[in-house]
Order: sequence, then C-alpha cells, then structure tokens
Amino acid sequence: MSDYDVVVLGAGIAGMCAAIAAAEEGRSVLLVDAEDSIGGRSQFSTGMIMAAGTRFQREKGVEDDAESLFRHYMTLNQWKVDAGVVKALCYEVGPAVEWLADMGLQIKDVYFSGDENVPRGHVTVGGDAIVKVLHSRVRNAGIDIALRRRVDQLVVEDGRVTGVRVGDDSISASVVVLATGGIEGNPRLIEKYIPMAVELAGTRGVYPNGGAEVAKYSQGDAIPLSQQVGAQITGFNRFLANITPGFSTESDTYFPAWLVVVNSEGRRFYDEMSPYSVTQPIVYEQGGPVYAIFDDEAKRAAQPRTTEKQRKVRIPGQTWEDWIEPVIDENVHTGKVIKRDTIAGLARALDIPPDNLVKTLQKYNADVAAGEDTQFLKKPDYMRPVTSGPFYAAEVRLSRLSVTAVGPKVDRDGRVLDGGNAPIRGLFAAGECTGGVLGDVYVGSGNALANCIAFGRVAGRSAARSVGRSRVVAMAGEIAAPHSERP
Amino acid sequence: MSDYDVVVLGAGIAGMCAAIAAAEEGRSVLLVDAEDSIGGRSQFSTGMIMAAGTRFQREKGVEDDAESLFRHYMTLNQWKVDAGVVKALCYEVGPAVEWLADMGLQIKDVYFSGDENVPRGHVTVGGDAIVKVLHSRVRNAGIDIALRRRVDQLVVEDGRVTGVRVGDDSISASVVVLATGGIEGNPRLIEKYIPMAVELAGTRGVYPNGGAEVAKYSQGDAIPLSQQVGAQITGFNRFLANITPGFSTESDTYFPAWLVVVNSEGRRFYDEMSPYSVTQPIVYEQGGPVYAIFDDEAKRAAQPRTTEKQRKVRIPGQTWEDWIEPVIDENVHTGKVIKRDTIAGLARALDIPPDNLVKTLQKYNADVAAGEDTQFLKKPDYMRPVTSGPFYAAEVRLSRLSVTAVGPKVDRDGRVLDGGNAPIRGLFAAGECTGGVLGDVYVGSGNALANCIAFGRVAGRSAARSVGRSRVVAMAGEIAAPHSERP
Repeated sequence: MSDYDVVVLGAGIAGMCAAIAAAEEGRSVLLVDAEDSIGGRSQFSTGMIMAAGTRFQREKGVEDDAESLFRHYMTLNQWKVDAGVVKALCYEVGPAVEWLADMGLQIKDVYFSGDENVPRGHVTVGGDAIVKVLHSRVRNAGIDIALRRRVDQLVVEDGRVTGVRVGDDSISASVVVLATGGIEGNPRLIEKYIPMAVELAGTRGVYPNGGAEVAKYSQGDAIPLSQQVGAQITGFNRFLANITPGFSTESDTYFPAWLVVVNSEGRRFYDEMSPYSVTQPIVYEQGGPVYAIFDDEAKRAAQPRTTEKQRKVRIPGQTWEDWIEPVIDENVHTGKVIKRDTIAGLARALDIPPDNLVKTLQKYNADVAAGEDTQFLKKPDYMRPVTSGPFYAAEVRLSRLSVTAVGPKVDRDGRVLDGGNAPIRGLFAAGECTGGVLGDVYVGSGNALANCIAFGRVAGRSAARSVGRSRVVAMAGEIAAPHSERP
Repeated sequence: MSDYDVVVLGAGIAGMCAAIAAAEEGRSVLLVDAEDSIGGRSQFSTGMIMAAGTRFQREKGVEDDAESLFRHYMTLNQWKVDAGVVKALCYEVGPAVEWLADMGLQIKDVYFSGDENVPRGHVTVGGDAIVKVLHSRVRNAGIDIALRRRVDQLVVEDGRVTGVRVGDDSISASVVVLATGGIEGNPRLIEKYIPMAVELAGTRGVYPNGGAEVAKYSQGDAIPLSQQVGAQITGFNRFLANITPGFSTESDTYFPAWLVVVNSEGRRFYDEMSPYSVTQPIVYEQGGPVYAIFDDEAKRAAQPRTTEKQRKVRIPGQTWEDWIEPVIDENVHTGKVIKRDTIAGLARALDIPPDNLVKTLQKYNADVAAGEDTQFLKKPDYMRPVTSGPFYAAEVRLSRLSVTAVGPKVDRDGRVLDGGNAPIRGLFAAGECTGGVLGDVYVGSGNALANCIAFGRVAGRSAARSVGRSRVVAMAGEIAAPHSERP
C-alpha cells in the first residue's frame, strides 16, 4: 500500500488545485514543495484568469462560451497547438474559475485581457489572494503539506511511477502530479529550451519578471524528473517576454501612450498600445532592434505617480515606473536613452535612415492632427505629436521573461506523454511546468493562470480517478519532513 | 497633357478592377499587359472570393460584418500585418463583391473557406468567369487595352511618376497603377524575396501552381518598376504554398481523409483535414520532413474518379488526383512512396523512431474505434483505421507555390509607399503584386482575390481622384501597339 494515493510536486496555484481536486475525489494527498512556504511563483502573479462562459461574464452582460475561446485561442496560435488539449483548457477553465469562487475567491471584474472580442480576463485581488483561498481549502481538505523538500527523483517500477525520492527518503504514491512551475529561474534550461529568449535579450541578458526573488520558484524540476521516465518535452521556444527599456530589472508591463516605437528602418510597425500578448510576435518579426521615440514635452510631462495602490503586482523591489522624467534623465547619463536636438540627428545616432525616421514622425504628427492613425489604428486619444526638441530614443527589448511554456507534454486529462504520445503510467502534470498547452503567442493576460487552474484541477481529478482502489489512511506522520506544515 | 489620366499595368483581375474603377470616376484609362490576352494569372484561379457583410451572406442567413473579418484576419496573422491596410481590405471587399455581381458576376454560394467562424468564401464559376465579366465591362467603359506590351520602365519627372516606357515608346499618364501579379514565375525573385519557399521545397524544387503555363503571368514586374522610384518592398517570405507528395507538378489541394500525417518524430501534429491556410504554418513548425501514412486497404479503395466536372480549377494539364491506386503504385516504383510490411519497418525506412510511429497509429486506431480524435479533433466520420499491411508512406512537402505576397508596400488608398512610408507621387498598386496586405498566413481560400478586387477597385478609384483635372480626350490611336485590342 502506498503512503499516499496522490503526491503533488509544487505548491503553487496549479499544484494546490490538483491536490484539492484529488482530495475532493476522496484520495489521500501529499503536497510537496522545495521552498519554505506555499504559493510558488503564482503568488506574485497579477491574479488575472482568462476564462469564457462564466457566471461573472454573464453578470456583466458578456455573451461568451468556451467554444469561442477555443476558436480564438487556436486562431491566434495559427493552429500550432494541439486542438484536443486546448479544447480541454477552454472548456475547463470557466468551471474552474467558478470552483475557485465557490471556495471564496473574489472575482472583482471581467476585463479585456488581450486581443479577444469579448472581455475574458477575470480580475482577482492578485495571485497571493488566490493562493490564500487555495491554502485554506488545502488545510480543510486534509491534504498533507511537506515544505523544503526538493524531490530528486521519481521512483519507477516496471515503467510506472510509484513515488518520489527526496535525498535518502522516499514516499510511495499511486500517482504523482508534477506542478513545479516554469524555467524562469534556471539559465541552463532557458538556454537549452528557449534560446530565442536569450537571442531577443542580447547583451542585456534575460531577466525573469520579478527578479531572483521570484525566479527561485521556477527551477524547471519537471523537465529532468519527467525525462527520467521518457516524457516528451515540448514547447521549444515558447515563452512570454515583455518589452522593456532595461532601465531597471523591474519594468512596466505597458508603455505610456506617448511613445512612438520604430524599427531599425525608422518605421513604425504597430499600435504601441497593443496587448503584450501580440507585442511579442510583432516585435520579433522586425528582426532587429526597435526604439521608443519621444520628445522633450512628453518627457517633461511624465512625472512620478507611483503609489502603493498602483502596484497591482506586489513584487519585492518593484519600482513600477520606467517612463518618468527622473528615470529618463538618469538614463540619458547612463547612455540607455539617446538625446539629440533633431530627429535626423537622433536617427544618425541610432544608425537608422534619417529620412525614414523624419517621414515616419511627419506622418505620425499628421495623423495626430487628423485624429486618426491611418496605419495602425492606435486610438487617437492616446496620440500626441512628437515635435518639440530635444528628442529622445531608448532601445526597447523583449528581455523580461514572464512565462515559460516548455516541459513535459500532457494530454487533455493531464497525463504526461512519452515520445509516441502514449501516457506514462502514474504520472500527471499541470500548470506552467507543462508544454503544449500554451502556444507561440500568449493569448492574453490570464492565459498562464487559466492553464494552472484548469489543468491543475483536471490533472488532480484524473490522477485521483486513475487510482483503482479506495482511499487509504494517510500516514503523514511517517513521512512529513521536520519542517512540514501540519494541517 | 498626358496621353491618359490613368495607365494600369496588368490586365488580371486586380488591374481590370482598377481600370474600371478609374473609368467610373470619369478618367481616361489605358490597360497594358505583357501577354497576348487579358486575364493574367487570375483566370486560372478557383474564383473564390473571401468577403464579409455581403448580401449573398445575408441571403444564406449568415450574420457577418467587415469588423469580424478584420479581427479574424488580424488574429490569425498575430497582428503582424498593418491594421490600417487590412481594415480597408475587409471593409472594401464586401462592396467590391457586390459591385462585381452588379456587373453580372454570378455568386453561386457562400462556403467556409478556411479557419473562419462563418462562411465567407464567395463561390463563383471560376477565375475565368470573373475575367469575362470584367473584360466586358472594360470594353463598355471605353477603356483602351494594349496587349503584348511589357513595360520596361516608369517615366519619372521630379520624383513623380508621369508615364511608362515600352522599348522606345513612351506613354504619358497622370498616374500609373501597378497590377502585375505575383512572382511565381520568376525564380530569381523567389530566391531573393521568399527564400523560405525554396527551403521548404528542398531538392524537389518550388513549382508554381499550374506550371509554366500559368506562371508566365507572374513575373513580378512591379518590384523592379517600383524600386526605380524608391518604393519600399515588403512581405519578405510571405506566400502560400500547398502541401503535395510531388507525384506530379499538378497536385490536389486537399488530401484524402484516410491519410495520417506524421512528423520526423513519428507523431501526428494536426487534423489532416485542416484548411490549407493553416496547414502551411503547422507543417512549417515541424522543422523537418513530414510523411503521409496509409495502409493497403485504403490504397485499394482509392480509385480514380476524375471527371471534367470535378476539375473546379481549369488548369492546363491538370490531373487533379494524386491519391489513387494507379498513381500510388506507379510511385512505389519511382521510390516516392515507401512500402513495407510492418509499421515498424516503414518507420525504419523513413528513419523515424519505430516505437513512436507504432504508438501513434495505435492511438489513432483506438481513437477511430472510440469515434473521437482526442488529440486534433479530426472529424470521426473521416477517420479510418490504419491496420492492414502492407503499409505506405510518402513524404509530403509545401512545395507548390500558389500565391506570393511580396512587393511594393501600399497604404489603405493603394498608394505605393517609400522607405519612410510616404506615398510616391503618381504611383499606385493593387493585387498580388503588392506587399503588406496578406500576412504570414493565408486567411483562407479567396484571400488573394479579395485583395485583387478590393484593392484593385480602391487603387483605381484613388488614382482617378488624385488626378486633379477633368477628363482629357483619350488618344488611343497614337499609342496603341499594333496588336492591341481596340474597344
């Protein structure tokens, strides 16, 4: 008899959802985490969850359904993701949001969170609030928690996963669920599996959103653990990177509207207010550096407004404002911002064709005057002319790594698959540690948490149901580490 | 005074639409073509036109509008196309279809033509039928036609295009509209501007859809002509290629449902019945060869059914059926089809992991039995098991070039733009010869003709309106070539 029916590795949002779902099926569950507190990287997230067909949308009068989300998701990803898995995600995430709400999670609003036709971003107080609700439920459900236990190996018998090993200890389990998060904190895995992120960051270097404090939760343990049993690793070069000027390692997610962004040919190429989900492919498409351009009047008008209230994401050390006069002035001195008296001079300093940049800004200014961005449909209210020298430019790069989407491939039930897409017995996975659920393009704010809660719940439920016997008595006393929390 | 108000280069569908639209604005128009008959490459097209919000959709009870098409188009292209231009396309194409219908074009039906949510493919009898309707209107509108006149150069005065030169002759014009078609027939331009097509075709070589007979209409003249006045060439690596087994140079556009397609890892990766618009990015994503697999029972059941009626596209020499027993048997002998007694043997012959291919087909067969493709959602009715040896495999490649989308960049009015996105005076362009209207992904059957008719009409109208004076008397007699048609 196993120590536990289900052992879940990783106590972030995906892992806690899996543990709860398994416990709700009447299984004994142990939740193991390498760190000294629960919450994982998820606790630093904005807490936005992308979902369709929920009661929260209906309350706002938003007509939507899972099928519409599915089609949008597949289209934006040009159908380069497995339809079966995405369909499960889209159909499961709505009920999963309601399941969380029934546990006590407050859904504050539903916003547009990307390129979608209807609002699908379910706004919560933040990732930490979701973690709190889940933690409370984990305790109530009688789930054991073992902290500061980094699992070194899976225990495998006859090709079936039957437990985990932590140093010299081992814990037996009928099934194991991997929910160990992304690879943001593991430079070796980043280089191997998402080399494009390294290429995009260039000399500036990839820096994980939230810095080392957050990245320590994202070591990518699921990759070596699952490879031990022949898992298929999928999602090569799939990740979300945000564009930043590199003024600090904690940058704003969105640019102020007064920036005009041009490529190395000196041409605009998008609506600078595009959602970050599509900003990544558009900027990547330029095939070279891109620059944010602004004038002195804009700079002088950009004054600090940071307050605690505006820090939606509570990341340690977060400054939350790049594009303000004191920061810009400072970066003129560091050389990260180039300042010249004329547009042509600015272009020469950036080694882009002066004639192109001059014409680009003439066109932009004419469009501002006419009240219409004829090229990229930026909202006219956001546009202001770039006319009063001196002029400024900062190179902006996709160098802030926010989500990774590479790891063991799962099927629609959260089972980990081998090279021939056959399930590996006794092994499930969910959340950011998996590959194949997210595509090339992040569908919108909340895509990652949608994956965590939908597939966390699916994997926990499937794992529980795969255990072909009744609940065994939990023997937490025998296996919990000295520092474990006790429920 | 100019010989003509508007000279249009290229008498395909885009050029004829431009000529008619200009004539409808009261301008004198000359339509010039290098070949000895009108129709260009368009005459060989299927005649499908993608459009939204038309009376033909309404007649079928289809609710749709231009904005929905715009959003779908942008999403499928991950917003990597200029929104202003695409918006014009989406809003203009519906009225343009109705304009053609008012000229006498029969719209037979409205079908799904790609990945869209509602049917948008407006079915006509074929490209030749559209050409016929337009030709008749061209004659009625008093438009002069000069055939067998390949324009060598634009005449430029003070940076403004003021005419064209054919050998030693020149024709003066207030404005010139380029509508010279794609680059399918020009290997030098293919290599330079769409090297990915060359890479995809590999040793098999790129072959233009329809062969040399059709490709001769697609010499890409707009590129050198527009470069002469500093046009921005855009659309690098943008084209539509169809997947084929290379049994002949005239392949079927769709595969039969009984083929199972796997990548070099021996894994399926999509619904084999996907529209060709998304097949291209999905196959490209595999990063290596892909193979169509089938068994002996399927082969024996695949008997010829070609009739004249089924040849929707009337291309000279078209065989229209690849996947039939006699052709397959023939290609077993040529080595294009590999035949082995077992799946594992087939895998070894293809140098793909045998275990993966065996599991892939086990999974597929289990899904057939269960009546559901759990991975890629292929319709169960289309699926049949792959069980009865011997087994067959054919490498399939994106080697048939059907549309190219590289050329002078235009704005939403069809004006040709320079490096700084400023319009070049006196120069417009429309249709397949332009860049920036089509994106990385072909939105669906009818995307190319949508571009031709919408922007043909837009460019003709804009060109006409840019002529700041009243109609001059046409002096066709002075300039028409000896072989010209006379209206």
